[in-house]
Order: sequence, then C-alpha cells, then structure tokens
Amino acid sequence: MERAIAQAAEVGLTGVLVTPGPDLVYFTGYRPLAITERITMLALQQGREPAMIVPVLERPDAESSPGASALTLGDWSDGNDPYAASAALLDPKGSYAISDSAWAMHVLGLQQALPRSEYVSMTSTLPMLRAVKDADELERLTAAGAAADASFEQIVHVQFAGRIETAIGADLAGFLRDHGHSEVDFTVVGSGPNGANPHHGIGERVIEEGDMVVLDFGGTEDGYRSDTTRTVHVGEPTDEEREVFDVVRRAQQAGYEAVRPGVACQEVDRAARKVIDDAGYGECFIHRTGHGIGLATHEPPDMVEGETRELEPGMCFSIEPGIYLPGRFGVRIEDIVTVTEYGGRRLNNTVRELQIVS
Amino acid sequence: MERAIAQAAEVGLTGVLVTPGPDLVYFTGYRPLAITERITMLALQQGREPAMIVPVLERPDAESSPGASALTLGDWSDGNDPYAASAALLDPKGSYAISDSAWAMHVLGLQQALPRSEYVSMTSTLPMLRAVKDADELERLTAAGAAADASFEQIVHVQFAGRIETAIGADLAGFLRDHGHSEVDFTVVGSGPNGANPHHGIGERVIEEGDMVVLDFGGTEDGYRSDTTRTVHVGEPTDEEREVFDVVRRAQQAGYEAVRPGVACQEVDRAARKVIDDAGYGECFIHRTGHGIGLATHEPPDMVEGETRELEPGMCFSIEPGIYLPGRFGVRIEDIVTVTEYGGRRLNNTVRELQIVS
Repeated sequence: MERAIAQAAEVGLTGVLVTPGPDLVYFTGYRPLAITERITMLALQQGREPAMIVPVLERPDAESSPGASALTLGDWSDGNDPYAASAALLDPKGSYAISDSAWAMHVLGLQQALPRSEYVSMTSTLPMLRAVKDADELERLTAAGAAADASFEQIVHVQFAGRIETAIGADLAGFLRDHGHSEVDFTVVGSGPNGANPHHGIGERVIEEGDMVVLDFGGTEDGYRSDTTRTVHVGEPTDEEREVFDVVRRAQQAGYEAVRPGVACQEVDRAARKVIDDAGYGECFIHRTGHGIGLATHEPPDMVEGETRELEPGMCFSIEPGIYLPGRFGVRIEDIVTVTEYGGRRLNNTVRELQIVS
Repeated sequence: MERAIAQAAEVGLTGVLVTPGPDLVYFTGYRPLAITERITMLALQQGREPAMIVPVLERPDAESSPGASALTLGDWSDGNDPYAASAALLDPKGSYAISDSAWAMHVLGLQQALPRSEYVSMTSTLPMLRAVKDADELERLTAAGAAADASFEQIVHVQFAGRIETAIGADLAGFLRDHGHSEVDFTVVGSGPNGANPHHGIGERVIEEGDMVVLDFGGTEDGYRSDTTRTVHVGEPTDEEREVFDVVRRAQQAGYEAVRPGVACQEVDRAARKVIDDAGYGECFIHRTGHGIGLATHEPPDMVEGETRELEPGMCFSIEPGIYLPGRFGVRIEDIVTVTEYGGRRLNNTVRELQIVS
C-alpha cells in the first residue's frame, strides 16, 4: 500500500482507488462474494490512513479478510447514497488512479459527488504497480504453469477425431482441476477452420482426421493464473501445415530470446512478428504478442508495438504469436515467461514441436 | 434498440453506449468470450445506424451473433488507440448513458478522447430499459425459477447434520444443473452463526443438530437467472427460532401482497419492513427487500426506500426480507415475483413454512 501511494505521488496523483478484482486481492486479500452494483472501494492516499468502504451487509466478510487489520473499514447501507459515503474518504480536489475494471457507474458517481476531483485509469498511469512479481507470486505462477503443462501432457493422449470440441474442453478442465487448479477460466478448442478465429472459444464442431487443433487453456491455482497454448494435429499434417507451424514456433522462440532486463516490451513483439513477416504471413498475425499475467489473466505489461516500458526482473507475461488462415486453420504457441537477471525463463515447458494426436 | 434510442431522447441524451454484459446480450445476443481490457461497445443514437466496435480478433464471433445483421460492425486492433476508434462513432458533444458495469478505464478513455462529451450510468438515467420483461423473457425466468424450486425440493432430503457447508453447496449445484441450469452462479449455505451474515457465502463449518441454515442459490438457464432463498432447520427448532422464522415469513408475504401495478417500489420494501419492525427486529433487517432480475441477477428495479418508480406488469424482482441475529442465526425467505395486471405472481413456489431437515 505504501508503494502504491508513493508511485501515485511520483506521477502527481493524490492516491489510488481500488475496487474488487485483482487489485483489491493484491492489496488486501479481500474477494467479495460477487462484484455488483454495490460499491466497495479501498482508498490509498498520502497523509491518510488506508480506508475501505463496503456495503454494510458485506462488512463481516471484509472484516475477516487478511488485510483488514491494516485499514479503517467504513460501510454504507441500502437506501443511502453510496457515492456521498465514498466521497467522504476522498480529497474533493484530489486526482486518483482507479482500478481499470471499476464499474463506470461508480466512477461517474464519484465524479458527480466531487465535481472537482479527477480520475484516471490504473493502467494508463500506474501500469507497473503489480507487474513485478515477488518470490511468492513467482512460485504460485510457476505452480499454475506446471499444472497447465501436466494437463497438456495428458490431453495429447485422448481421442480427438470424432469427438466434439466441448468434449476435449471438458477433458482439459478435468485435468486442470486434477492438477490443482481451483478454477478453470477458459478452455479454447479451435479445430480446423475454428482455429483460424483466434478468439473462437469452443463449439459443437466434430473434430476430424486432418484437423489442426488450437488448445488454449488456463485457470487459477492459489489465486494466480495459468495460460498456455499448444496446437496439435489429428493425424499426419500436410507440408503447408508443417511450414506454418514451424514459422509460429520460430516466432515464439524469437520472442522468448528477446527477453532480458532493460529491453522495451515492444521489442518482444517485434522479434516474434519479424519471423512471421519474413515468412510472408504478417497479415495473418492479428494480435499483440503477449500480455502480463498474475492475479488476472490479462494485466500489464503488454508485449505490443508502442509499449516502450522496459522489462524488469520479476515481470511475467505471455509470448503467443499465431498465424490464422481464415476458413482453413490456425496455429498459436503460448508460454508464460518471466524476466530474470539474465533473460527469460519459461513457466510453460511442454514440447513445442508439433504433436500428432489421434 | 429503437426503444432505447427513444427513451434516451426523452431524458435529453444523445444515445446509449452498451458494453459486454447483460445490456449487450439484451440488444444483440452477443456475449464475448471474456470481458477484458479490450473495449467492445455498441452505440445507439438518434439519426445514426446502430454501430458496434470490437477488437479485431473478436470480429468473427461478433459477426456471428444474433443481432449482428442489425448493426454496422467496426473493429480496432492491438497497438492502435481503441478510444480514438470508439470516439469516431460518437457525437463529440454528445451525452450518453453507458452500461453500469462498463470498465472505468473505458469511460475515462472516452472522456479523454472527447472532452466535451458527457456520460451517465444506465441505471441512474434509464433504469427501466430492461425492467419490463416480454412473454419470452417471462417464460425463461419462470423456467429458471421452477428449476431452482425443484432443487430445493431435493435438498431438504439430503443429510445436513455432520456435513460441511460446501458439501451442501455442491449438492445444490448438482441439482440446479440436473434441472437445466447451464451455470450455477452462487450457492450460499449459512449455517448457525454464519446465517447471521447475510453475505456469508459458504465455508468449512460443520453443520450441527439445532442449526438454522440459510440456503440462497441461483444460476442461469437459457440466459436468464434464478435466485431463491429458503431457511431450514436441522432437527426441532426452539420457540425463538420458530418466532423469528414466522416474522420473516409474514414479512415476505406482506411484501408480496403489496405488489400491483402503479405501486411505488418502495412500498414493497415498506410493507415487508413494517412486519419486521412491528415484531421488534427492525435493526436486524439490514438490506433492501429486493432487486430486479433478468439477464443479470441484480438489476433495476430495487425494492428499497427512496425508489419511487411505479411497478408495471412484466417487472420481475426478488422479495427477500431477513432477520440476522449476530453470532447466533439468520433467517431469509426469497421468491422472485413478477407483476401482473392484478397483483404479483411468484416464480418460486416451494413451501414457505419452516422445513425440518436431518
């Protein structure tokens, strides 16, 4: 909390407003039962004690959260104005960074209650607040990655041909749970042409002999997230399929090799993208190379053109280039990588050669 | 969409901005795979075609959504400014209602891109946009309620004493799925003193003979939500437990009987609260009497003091008074009720007398 207040002051802000989600877990360990229209907000500001306001009926839960002893807890009850109660914690002319995923209704309510106050999003002003992981966080991210890897090593042995994507997804979810995940956040199974849609989730398509299948899956273990992608092939691939796969594999490796402290995030994107561009598939790689990961699956820093912030030891992010051939197939390979003093260390370590499944 | 534009114009707004969640499902049937930092936004405005902007990699999913044919689809790609792209859809001096749960970073991004534009939350300006359900929606809410009822009728036959709360929750979740729920959104099992915390979720407490147990559970069936609460007792209750239960039962009935078209929402709250106040437990009823329900578990209208809007046929909401005796036990009884021309109709119809479980 002190570090957040100091970082906010460095960029000229009065403080930081934290709402339920990964930011609040980070500072207090508190996860409300549900994130709803009832405002819960932690205010961290110079010269004031950390203070959190919660709906009165959630007070007992908030009181029993790990960080409760380090803050003053206030509450508001149904029928009263939650923004008046929240505004009472703030400097009427203050400027605050607020959690990205705070509800619009809440930030608009604060703007109305305190017309001279100002708000900016956490990511636009303090993007690196949670970016550098400590040893405990790294241990949990490593464990989550290992569980995802163990799940991949099992999934290549199941039958693919003749089964629908959702059946493979259910297998993956079961394996993730077996290996210690408390929650399965997503299981993307993109077979054949579905794999060419990078955000295809999962569907009723029957997987066939000859399909490329993109498997992108992850979840939560001990609060921290896993996220890995491997692309497998049902039976023997064609030469073109092998070639496209190999371009993506080399791009992923190039991105990985670009990782070291002091390098701008965009250099990781450029390194991966160059391999795909050079192979003539540049237009088929339609997303950033990677995103930070921790308490949230997507968080700063992004590995994307324009992100000039420099890598620091302890940062964790995905490197996940892909090639998508509309109507035909897609290939993506994704590892979570952490920055060490010497370069990158992968938290996903399953084989990156094309695996043939049946 | 036309109705939304007309309602916005009536309150002097340029239009409505809809982000992923229940509002977007309502207008387009589109549910992105995940709600993330990448902005997706539908703009409904007078004199312009409905237009939606999505991240380019989610374009194929958005194109295949039910409502896609009724709107112009635009996209933005990683590395470009999503707010510049979103702002291009809007009137630079426009005033817009935006979905309550839109991310703060998105509304702050729009404010920065268009400094002369203005934003208000959907609930503060157009709270009743989704409040009156049509016949199809009512049918789905009725089916969801019936599935929750069937689950309650099964849970009273399982063993409570000697088992932990999470085991009962797992039973409830299984029953909800068996009866057609695609998702289980929450299973609150508040035994003994845990029941006195209205937002206690579920825990590791071992349920004992003599416990009151609050069971508050719900999920999603065919897109629409269920939410019902019954309180059961393990073995014979004391006179005091019977009395408290009876006060809540009568309060819930009084709230129900207050429902008819033209009555202010707050009257439902007042009717239920009066029974509890008169019995001397007023300070132990620490939340609103109810909340609207539909595509979201919580949505307008609220049954709360100060909500003077009038009930209309087709509105659906919970009536869920409770009494919470800290450190001892709690009782809550909750039905979803819809407004008909003649009065209320309950969508939950399991027995409201105290059920004894073993």
